[in-house]
Amino acid sequence: MEVEAGVNETGRVEAFSDGVFAIAITLLILEIKVPEVEPGQSLWGALGHLWPSYAAYVVSFLVIGIIWMNHHQFLAHLARVDRVALFLNLLLLMTVSALPWPTSVVAAYLRDGDDAKIAMAVYGGFMVLFSTAFSLFWWYVTRRGHLFHDYVDTEGARATRGRFALGMLLYPCTVGLAFVSAVGTLILHGVLAVYYAFNQLPVPVRADSGTAAD
Amino acid sequence: MEVEAGVNETGRVEAFSDGVFAIAITLLILEIKVPEVEPGQSLWGALGHLWPSYAAYVVSFLVIGIIWMNHHQFLAHLARVDRVALFLNLLLLMTVSALPWPTSVVAAYLRDGDDAKIAMAVYGGFMVLFSTAFSLFWWYVTRRGHLFHDYVDTEGARATRGRFALGMLLYPCTVGLAFVSAVGTLILHGVLAVYYAFNQLPVPVRADSGTAAD
Amino acid sequence: MEVEAGVNETGRVEAFSDGVFAIAITLLILEIKVPEVEPGQSLWGALGHLWPSYAAYVVSFLVIGIIWMNHHQFLAHLARVDRVALFLNLLLLMTVSALPWPTSVVAAYLRDGDDAKIAMAVYGGFMVLFSTAFSLFWWYVTRRGHLFHDYVDTEGARATRGRFALGMLLYPCTVGLAFVSAVGTLILHGVLAVYYAFNQLPVPVRADSGTAAD
Amino acid sequence: MEVEAGVNETGRVEAFSDGVFAIAITLLILEIKVPEVEPGQSLWGALGHLWPSYAAYVVSFLVIGIIWMNHHQFLAHLARVDRVALFLNLLLLMTVSALPWPTSVVAAYLRDGDDAKIAMAVYGGFMVLFSTAFSLFWWYVTRRGHLFHDYVDTEGARATRGRFALGMLLYPCTVGLAFVSAVGTLILHGVLAVYYAFNQLPVPVRADSGTAAD
Repeated sequence: MEVEAGVNETGRVEAFSDGVFAIAITLLILEIKVPEVEPGQSLWGALGHLWPSYAAYVVSFLVIGIIWMNHHQFLAHLARVDRVALFLNLLLLMTVSALPWPTSVVAAYLRDGDDAKIAMAVYGGFMVLFSTAFSLFWWYVTRRGHLFHDYVDTEGARATRGRFALGMLLYPCTVGLAFVSAVGTLILHGVLAVYYAFNQLPVPVRADSGTAAD
Repeated sequence: MEVEAGVNETGRVEAFSDGVFAIAITLLILEIKVPEVEPGQSLWGALGHLWPSYAAYVVSFLVIGIIWMNHHQFLAHLARVDRVALFLNLLLLMTVSALPWPTSVVAAYLRDGDDAKIAMAVYGGFMVLFSTAFSLFWWYVTRRGHLFHDYVDTEGARATRGRFALGMLLYPCTVGLAFVSAVGTLILHGVLAVYYAFNQLPVPVRADSGTAAD
Repeated sequence: MEVEAGVNETGRVEAFSDGVFAIAITLLILEIKVPEVEPGQSLWGALGHLWPSYAAYVVSFLVIGIIWMNHHQFLAHLARVDRVALFLNLLLLMTVSALPWPTSVVAAYLRDGDDAKIAMAVYGGFMVLFSTAFSLFWWYVTRRGHLFHDYVDTEGARATRGRFALGMLLYPCTVGLAFVSAVGTLILHGVLAVYYAFNQLPVPVRADSGTAAD
Repeated sequence: MEVEAGVNETGRVEAFSDGVFAIAITLLILEIKVPEVEPGQSLWGALGHLWPSYAAYVVSFLVIGIIWMNHHQFLAHLARVDRVALFLNLLLLMTVSALPWPTSVVAAYLRDGDDAKIAMAVYGGFMVLFSTAFSLFWWYVTRRGHLFHDYVDTEGARATRGRFALGMLLYPCTVGLAFVSAVGTLILHGVLAVYYAFNQLPVPVRADSGTAAD
């Protein structure tokens, strides 16, 4: 007789994921460099020159913070995880903890014409990767519903896939928009993050469930 | 019927916030560079040259550590969080995890006359941002009191806003003082941090509450 | 009478280990530098030039993530830890948190002929160190079985040492393979990580134990 | 009536401290640079040249890891913390999370004659700071014993101060020894760390306490 090791409690997955989110969001600040003062310039000028770093920091901080909020909400509906879910969560974390890099690329090139557009397209590309990883996780979890708490209506949850996919279409659009306006696309990413902070996919509960969900 | 996802337990918010505080405070050490020995100099000289880095490290470590203490105390009074509270907490964390950057700027320019003053003014400016974010959180929470534990006297808590705002006026003053003395202002920030370690805003409890608050 | 301090609960060991894993995996992104655009080149070219960084990031992220999964599973079978186990766990964490460095070396030299092979051999060497540390831990724990939960069959667990050692022989082979093909060996490390995500050493439980293991 | 906010549960202090320890220990790897191959040299030579980095990494990893073990043990005896204990713990964490910096200084100068000795003296100086902070914490906690769990014999705990202070005398000696042999002193720090992994100050329990301490 061997231990069935495929199914685990979700506590340590949440702790590990929270750690990765907290570190990724805090590493963002390393992207803002100490300004270098040119001869004859004051520190004010050098500080002002770094505006793309400040903008990229604020947007990426909101983006990662709000992914954390929704990831948090999402995992709360799971009673257990299996190996596949652990692996899909790992892929999701890979795309999130990569975000400091496109943030640095945007900060470095946002003043540079065509390269600014390329940098923002890359940034949008990472959001596509992230939303794909999140969708895979969501599709896997709603397929059989075997990981959900009892109160979750698996049928209803599966029906939300469409709305989920619709949201996913936004990010490929930001890749295209980057070539129209780099700065505008950066602002759009910030606006989308705030939107998702207050509007999230509701998870349906069974009609016969007396339990409040949270 | 859909899950009411707006209200959550506070445990994972504390864990995430603690993670961000712990990382921000530990990243501070990356600001102190390995000293470079000039020809004919010994390592002692190069080490001594870095004194602004040591001073900025100690002050910012105390500042973040004591913000953590008070944030800790503050969240302990909340029984639950909603989306707005999560978002305001995220803004607060953004200002805290940004602090390693002004710390680096101060470390780099504290020996440089006028630029030292500008660097300290920027440092003070980040404290203004932080205290504004903390106040917004406090105002939101005391407005209806719907997130507090039962033992908290919401009326009384709302009355503390004035004292809270008074404390907030200190930080804009440090921006001005930076132009009088950069080093003196850095020391003042350290003193203020130690002051707030031992003096914090008390939260009033209901007269009819038999429960000790902590 | 003095406190017997040799035996502790496992909770804080898990929390500390989870922290180290989460930080090591998230620091990997610092290895990918901001691309530098040569005159006359576009950002696309500079981004493409960094492919070894992307490949090394993905492989090392999977490697550390899956070590975390298996470490997690492993510690779940322990009811307590003693000083020796704490020390062996520390050695294990040392080899894991070192992985961002060989990852950086591979990223820097994967395009450089013979140096690419040396870099991959070093990478393989760190996997040998890691698997040695994990085996030491496993051997210690299965020797007396005094740290296991009651449901674990210590005899049976000790018998798995052979299969454990077999797995360990793979990593020295990757050191040799590095000199045949550097890129091929990097891919092999990724494949091995995914293999270990879904195939892990089962821990035997007592025949008379009614408890499911997880 | 106001909330008596001076006394807190120890859980979040442990979580925050664990976070700081985990991050400080994992940041150590950033000290080891990617080797730069000189023309006509192979990567092997450049890798070998970095031996001081490897040595400093291993020693500092053991040092921080074992401080964590003992800090863990120490906090387990506390039932609660007050503002002074929180502040002293913060000072202790400040000295621990500073350790990556002297580690980098040692790694950079361990091959450089007199500067190697200075670098090791600085490293020893940080251990003096750390042990002073730990002693202050210990003295405060044993003075009244008001923070201990009931099972702790405060009188007996106070009597251990002498042995504690004796251990503290070792670190000033390492500062002096650095000027005799830099490499030897680095090895000594590693040996001391392993010694403290297996020999720690026992905390006396009350004769009338039936409870096992851990």
